[in-house]
Amino acid sequence: MIKVAIVGASGYTGVELIRILHAHPEVAVTCVTSEQSAGRPVSDVFPTLRGRCDLILESLEPVGIAGQVDVVFTALPHKAAMAVVPTFLKMGKDVVDLSADYRLHDADVYGKWYEKHLTPELLPQAVYGLPELRRDKIREANLIANPGCYPTSVILGLAPLLKGKVIDPKSIIVDAKSGTSGAGRSAKVDNLYCEVNEGFKAYGVGGVHRHIPEIEQELALLAGTPLTISFTPHLVPMDRGILSTIYSVPTGKVTAAELVTLYEAFYEGEPFVRVLPEGVLPSTAHVRGSNFCDIGVVVDERTGRIIVVSAIDNLVKGASGQAVQNMNLMCGLPETLGLDFLGIFP
Amino acid sequence: MIKVAIVGASGYTGVELIRILHAHPEVAVTCVTSEQSAGRPVSDVFPTLRGRCDLILESLEPVGIAGQVDVVFTALPHKAAMAVVPTFLKMGKDVVDLSADYRLHDADVYGKWYEKHLTPELLPQAVYGLPELRRDKIREANLIANPGCYPTSVILGLAPLLKGKVIDPKSIIVDAKSGTSGAGRSAKVDNLYCEVNEGFKAYGVGGVHRHIPEIEQELALLAGTPLTISFTPHLVPMDRGILSTIYSVPTGKVTAAELVTLYEAFYEGEPFVRVLPEGVLPSTAHVRGSNFCDIGVVVDERTGRIIVVSAIDNLVKGASGQAVQNMNLMCGLPETLGLDFLGIFP
Amino acid sequence: MIKVAIVGASGYTGVELIRILHAHPEVAVTCVTSEQSAGRPVSDVFPTLRGRCDLILESLEPVGIAGQVDVVFTALPHKAAMAVVPTFLKMGKDVVDLSADYRLHDADVYGKWYEKHLTPELLPQAVYGLPELRRDKIREANLIANPGCYPTSVILGLAPLLKGKVIDPKSIIVDAKSGTSGAGRSAKVDNLYCEVNEGFKAYGVGGVHRHIPEIEQELALLAGTPLTISFTPHLVPMDRGILSTIYSVPTGKVTAAELVTLYEAFYEGEPFVRVLPEGVLPSTAHVRGSNFCDIGVVVDERTGRIIVVSAIDNLVKGASGQAVQNMNLMCGLPETLGLDFLGIFP
Amino acid sequence: MIKVAIVGASGYTGVELIRILHAHPEVAVTCVTSEQSAGRPVSDVFPTLRGRCDLILESLEPVGIAGQVDVVFTALPHKAAMAVVPTFLKMGKDVVDLSADYRLHDADVYGKWYEKHLTPELLPQAVYGLPELRRDKIREANLIANPGCYPTSVILGLAPLLKGKVIDPKSIIVDAKSGTSGAGRSAKVDNLYCEVNEGFKAYGVGGVHRHIPEIEQELALLAGTPLTISFTPHLVPMDRGILSTIYSVPTGKVTAAELVTLYEAFYEGEPFVRVLPEGVLPSTAHVRGSNFCDIGVVVDERTGRIIVVSAIDNLVKGASGQAVQNMNLMCGLPETLGLDFLGIFP
Repeated sequence: MIKVAIVGASGYTGVELIRILHAHPEVAVTCVTSEQSAGRPVSDVFPTLRGRCDLILESLEPVGIAGQVDVVFTALPHKAAMAVVPTFLKMGKDVVDLSADYRLHDADVYGKWYEKHLTPELLPQAVYGLPELRRDKIREANLIANPGCYPTSVILGLAPLLKGKVIDPKSIIVDAKSGTSGAGRSAKVDNLYCEVNEGFKAYGVGGVHRHIPEIEQELALLAGTPLTISFTPHLVPMDRGILSTIYSVPTGKVTAAELVTLYEAFYEGEPFVRVLPEGVLPSTAHVRGSNFCDIGVVVDERTGRIIVVSAIDNLVKGASGQAVQNMNLMCGLPETLGLDFLGIFP
Repeated sequence: MIKVAIVGASGYTGVELIRILHAHPEVAVTCVTSEQSAGRPVSDVFPTLRGRCDLILESLEPVGIAGQVDVVFTALPHKAAMAVVPTFLKMGKDVVDLSADYRLHDADVYGKWYEKHLTPELLPQAVYGLPELRRDKIREANLIANPGCYPTSVILGLAPLLKGKVIDPKSIIVDAKSGTSGAGRSAKVDNLYCEVNEGFKAYGVGGVHRHIPEIEQELALLAGTPLTISFTPHLVPMDRGILSTIYSVPTGKVTAAELVTLYEAFYEGEPFVRVLPEGVLPSTAHVRGSNFCDIGVVVDERTGRIIVVSAIDNLVKGASGQAVQNMNLMCGLPETLGLDFLGIFP
Repeated sequence: MIKVAIVGASGYTGVELIRILHAHPEVAVTCVTSEQSAGRPVSDVFPTLRGRCDLILESLEPVGIAGQVDVVFTALPHKAAMAVVPTFLKMGKDVVDLSADYRLHDADVYGKWYEKHLTPELLPQAVYGLPELRRDKIREANLIANPGCYPTSVILGLAPLLKGKVIDPKSIIVDAKSGTSGAGRSAKVDNLYCEVNEGFKAYGVGGVHRHIPEIEQELALLAGTPLTISFTPHLVPMDRGILSTIYSVPTGKVTAAELVTLYEAFYEGEPFVRVLPEGVLPSTAHVRGSNFCDIGVVVDERTGRIIVVSAIDNLVKGASGQAVQNMNLMCGLPETLGLDFLGIFP
Repeated sequence: MIKVAIVGASGYTGVELIRILHAHPEVAVTCVTSEQSAGRPVSDVFPTLRGRCDLILESLEPVGIAGQVDVVFTALPHKAAMAVVPTFLKMGKDVVDLSADYRLHDADVYGKWYEKHLTPELLPQAVYGLPELRRDKIREANLIANPGCYPTSVILGLAPLLKGKVIDPKSIIVDAKSGTSGAGRSAKVDNLYCEVNEGFKAYGVGGVHRHIPEIEQELALLAGTPLTISFTPHLVPMDRGILSTIYSVPTGKVTAAELVTLYEAFYEGEPFVRVLPEGVLPSTAHVRGSNFCDIGVVVDERTGRIIVVSAIDNLVKGASGQAVQNMNLMCGLPETLGLDFLGIFP
């Protein structure tokens, strides 16, 4: 059994990691931390866990924790992650970091969108953990930068088009929509039930969302050229799910049928990407609770634009499920182990 | 008192008309029709009305109805509307038609997107009822084609940019999101609570939604040139509200501040359009139950694109509220009479 | 015009008062207060109000406020209300207090369920503002204790049975359910969207909810004898609405038809109580946004028990709507003025 | 591998069976039926299944189906089930019937609440499949009457009290609340999103719900005496979950602590019943997607009444999860096999 610590277990990605790993045949979660709830059983904070995972939440002491486990998942806010990840690495632990701290290859870009990076020397060894694009490197990594939720949906949605040089890289517009769990579990008026329910809004409009540099970094690698995208996130009154509607202009004439074939070829054999048949479009309801990314592709004959729609569960493929997928790869386990559960509907 | 008939009163726009007109000081709803519920009190179908509007739903007999009232609101499906509107007009009634039947000036375009038009000879006298653009013509009309919900949000969102020739008309992409009441009240599995709740999806992707010709017709008039847009509607798990996120490319350099000034000037004095200050964006939650259209404008400095976000309540400004606004204008009443209620929050 | 201050305007009952009074023909809201948002326009906190009520939120200075207005609505937490109400009264203002501070006639009971009362000398002059039971006293009062939301639904639901001595007063069990706006607008993890959505729970089980003494006080007056009830509140994942399911044992044999007749007689002429026909039961969806209380009565032939189901909008008849109804009575205005709007559906 | 057919797979309990059994290590679902969707892949009806279970839905031909499988789950409406179950039994198959057809021991009672029973001769061999009460009989059965959702929550909630003769059996009042998936997947206006959302209502009030005889049958067996209960179901605007609030009068004085001890002893070792500590109460959010039944017990010191609150996921412990638990027992597998997944939160 692989012993695992979940650092920052009182948030939604933390409890989702526990849920997923509880059913993983080769893993035992043996340590969970939370500053604000230290000393309480994690099942007190998340009663879904009662009777199955009643570990006491600990304060985060990196050295002590590293001594007890094989793998560490850091589900902390950015900056808090890079304060402790170096210690885990120094003690020889594999780390899957769910924060943004090791996703950007360039410390200056990180500095511009977040703040000054504390450990830029670790960036070269961090692997951006999107298995569909970087499976082999993940297998050899000891530090995985687990992708953001929006980036996962966008990069998987666009990879075949950019890799295949089908579209003009300057034409990309992403209109993305997220369920409310993406806003986290901190007590803010804006996230109260009555403030969110029965409303729909855009936020961070105008190219200011922090997931943008991460998306552009990965898309540029796929395209082989720098690019700039328009990205507008929205908040949906539901718990889980991200749907990205992605507009782009093809460099030549293409049909939807050709594109579906392209996507099917690109994602052939991928266990968690489902390319939908022509004419079928995804819904977040159909990936809820699962590690799938569903992708539909359409060509608007009137305007010539390509419209890609991709859907994930932001807490699973967009966070904790993908983190476990990365852990499986790092640990030499079958990639789908513990992850082949179906979505929950309704 | 103006006597009013609501033809097709067992749908959501029908009950919303009754709700609004109940508080209108110069109107009495005296006739309501429904084929499927004929013979039952409308308050049986919609118990919100109990004790305040207990009219018996009648079968639709145009001549009989026309004999009793001054104004007719037709809240019927397309095709059903054009089967009865001519009779109402012939008998000298003012008609506000909430269907799509008289919105398109060109019967051929109607034929292409819907079916063969039955009364193309009436199209020239029908006025597309967007008061912000066509107030004077509405005052003189006897047949108002009440705009669709998506079109209202998009046209109001883009009018200042197109009229001011600020953007390239070929660059317009509309990513629109609607609450579920837009799907109507017929019994379909797709609209069941458990199918809609906790899910978000696109539909009608690829330039096939029937509101497209209506939007393009009006935008072309504003731009002074034909244009083609990309339009993607989405379904939000909430009852009411439309939010349209609209992307376009300016012809020259502009700032958000300049655009807000442009919008404020364009909509100066408009009672139901609220141009939001720079940096503020609308939410459907803030227009729910009201006749407002809230508009925010942003410039993405990184890509140069303009992003307009507009929000309405699809049943009020997007349907029944706008219909009453049109009726007020047609009948020589103050435009805001009975419509100056605030949105309901939460 | 009656000039009105809303003290504590940044909560949900505050904005609901503004919404209702905006459409009231004889009232002008001229002062709104909020400690946490003082200095900001109230329309900044609640953008539904933008362009219609852009008053600046003030700090609460009772003397200054009293100098500007005729009537004060205090929408403060308990204890905060009784700290300022005496000043308003001393300065001759009519006060409608939406807190619990003046609802209980007995300061000792208040002390037991809340804390030591600061101004017990005012209790005799406070009138418990349920117009259906105490219309004449309200007309002469200058201090109205506006009833709690749960109590409104329960007292109106049981009044005919207790007044008519139809049931055993010791047999009453109230199973009540409330929408989330009843939990207020403060930033707590428990009230976050993701914590409330898609869940249903009981809280305050076992006779500990603070609305109990208020309910028992009023029911005892109706019954002419002290009584003790079982009361269990629940939280529903929706914004608005209270539904109380009330069980009791009749002292003799009765039929549902007889009970409906009893209720119709008891509430004859009441503008805001709708007694439903036999076999029809209320839903919170049918009173949402309105000042109605809908009541259905059933007899369970198998067990002999009477089941009353009553529904209100907790923010309207359960708070701000009833407060305006009381103000109308106090000020000699028609009781329904500004309140005769229909519920919003869907 | 045990081969399994799911008869009636296009409803919510059908897809939930597929979801659960997909992760069951000893089962292969090899046949799924649906009359209305015969010929389509089940993953077309429920896209969550795409790529994992793409079986073609067949028409229901009992003999043919029985020839291919070892165990049959019948997820049909009542009456439809008893039309085919005899054939499956005759062909030696184990049957778990999720309908009501074999739950009532007495065909006359069935006749009174449903209609004339077609195969009363099978009733003696049917075992009411509540493992916590009847584990040994289930192991030997070949026909399991899988309990209803409400009955599961109520019987588990009351069993310790009745078995322990702690309460007066005549005093039981059950106020139950269910998510909307309990209403099934047929296209009815009443179940549309906009009709259910943002509303809460009671239905089937007055002792008329068909789950009553089933509850009373099992409670009477526990109490050793016939009994009659008051039962009021309500509809909650959420997908999944049942919460039952159960009132009763103890025969003598008891404390909550004593009752918690009683419940803990009664359910000791039970894998799927979680007795909550004194002062803790269940929420449907904490059992969503899991096979748990969470139970909290409170004594109201003021009235002397006992209040039990129990929560389940209506589609799991209330239907498909319990069905798999029964199958495990029938087939000699570990009872928790394939069922030890955690609930999904949020």
